[in-house]
Amino acid sequence: VFCGIVAGAPAHRVLDEGPILAFLDTSPLFPGHVLVVPKTHVPTLVDLPDALTAPLFTAVRRIARALEACGAGGSFVATNTRVSQSVPHLHVHVVPRTRGDGLRGFFWPRVRYESGQAEAWAQAIRHELFVDPQPPD
Amino acid sequence: VFCGIVAGAPAHRVLDEGPILAFLDTSPLFPGHVLVVPKTHVPTLVDLPDALTAPLFTAVRRIARALEACGAGGSFVATNTRVSQSVPHLHVHVVPRTRGDGLRGFFWPRVRYESGQAEAWAQAIRHELFVDPQPPD
Repeated sequence: VFCGIVAGAPAHRVLDEGPILAFLDTSPLFPGHVLVVPKTHVPTLVDLPDALTAPLFTAVRRIARALEACGAGGSFVATNTRVSQSVPHLHVHVVPRTRGDGLRGFFWPRVRYESGQAEAWAQAIRHELFVDPQPPD
Repeated sequence: VFCGIVAGAPAHRVLDEGPILAFLDTSPLFPGHVLVVPKTHVPTLVDLPDALTAPLFTAVRRIARALEACGAGGSFVATNTRVSQSVPHLHVHVVPRTRGDGLRGFFWPRVRYESGQAEAWAQAIRHELFVDPQPPD
């Protein structure tokens, strides 16, 4: 569906520059909710080529700023990879926010790490990143 | 608090490269929940300098990939600007996801645009961006 919009299907476009397209979500969380996509078919954030990272997120930042200029008190920027990802074409949501708008945001329940569990997670992630910026004590 | 971590306060660091630092959220949505921050004090996404955009979001992408390598089915990447922003230092959440994990994600109620309202929003945003990629019919 997003490749169709890139190819010219109807949409309320807000930005079309180089490799990036942005348009209104047709079913917004709040009016002004924008989706920002690379024009080439990139399935998920994990697949995003380095060359598109700056253009995509520069567009996201500019749109977040534009929404504030349109009167929003702030914004919520998010992207789902695989789980909860409704369309298999990378899209970043930029949603205008207003205090008291009812979006629960990050007020989901949080969990606690048991002893040693946090460092075990950190070590596993560092291992996958092939870096180890925090040597063991 | 994040400037303190940049300066050396205890944290479970997962990545420390150039201008970017990433560490575990101490109160995660799910274990493995990472926060990615620029080391310099950037209050919000809207304030992010161009020179930090690629490093910050390249780190986010690499961490999302590492979480999948650690067994996650996907990830949720998000940042709050001003509204719901708990710490006034830009931080991007990278949260490991598993199908059926209970995170409601984007299943918040959606709204509908009334006739003409979507194009009015798109025009207002385009005006603020100083671009008009979609001339009126």
